[in-house]
Amino acid sequence: MKKHELEKVSDFALGAENLGLAPYFIGKSYLSLLNDQEVDIYNVTFEPGCRNNWHIHHGCGQILICVGGHGWYQEAGQEVRSLKSGDVVYIAAEVKHWHGAAKNDAFAHLSLTVPTEGASHEWLEPVTDEAYNKLKIQ
Amino acid sequence: MKKHELEKVSDFALGAENLGLAPYFIGKSYLSLLNDQEVDIYNVTFEPGCRNNWHIHHGCGQILICVGGHGWYQEAGQEVRSLKSGDVVYIAAEVKHWHGAAKNDAFAHLSLTVPTEGASHEWLEPVTDEAYNKLKIQ
Repeated sequence: MKKHELEKVSDFALGAENLGLAPYFIGKSYLSLLNDQEVDIYNVTFEPGCRNNWHIHHGCGQILICVGGHGWYQEAGQEVRSLKSGDVVYIAAEVKHWHGAAKNDAFAHLSLTVPTEGASHEWLEPVTDEAYNKLKIQ
Repeated sequence: MKKHELEKVSDFALGAENLGLAPYFIGKSYLSLLNDQEVDIYNVTFEPGCRNNWHIHHGCGQILICVGGHGWYQEAGQEVRSLKSGDVVYIAAEVKHWHGAAKNDAFAHLSLTVPTEGASHEWLEPVTDEAYNKLKIQ
């Protein structure tokens, strides 16, 4: 999907291609820092089919505020959840999960974290094409 | 403006009429709690012309994430600032300010605060019709 199309997925700034986290994503995503005072807020835009690897936030949680398109969120051992603009997801610390776009739609969510001393992210195995393509919710 | 019209201002839940803070607002607003873990997140929807009084957050700041319509934000001694969906405003603690809808448009922003021990809100004088109606940015 072209950059000018991804810019229309949400009203928030698209930012630059998310090269720093690319090793932990399948597909292309964009990242834009919106605020870094008290709460770190990024806009993350995923191309259709793009998702991050399973991962765990240690020491603090994360909040997703969905702002455009159609995405998916899954916690280990749970059914996948369909996300659209207006949905808010709280991800507690230590919960293994992944998130990203649906198969045929781009997706944008804001990512919020409260800077916390000693907090870290642990990146785990990818969501394989086999597992992803089985997902049924559209 | 009717409730079903205000529900279309943003993709986020409108919630109930904001009666708790009504003494500190001119005009009608709606409030919806979206998250109360790590960061308190509310959707605040203002009818056209609705705005809150001048106020100060003591002990912690506030972040506004604009999600629909057209609004205004002003800090004491500064020019008013026009806000639209996709804008993000960081309001530092101890800064006197107000926010609300533009004259002829409804407005919705998410309000974010990190729960902080000893933090408080100080409500001050209203933004009078005389001052508000002089605002030029549309």
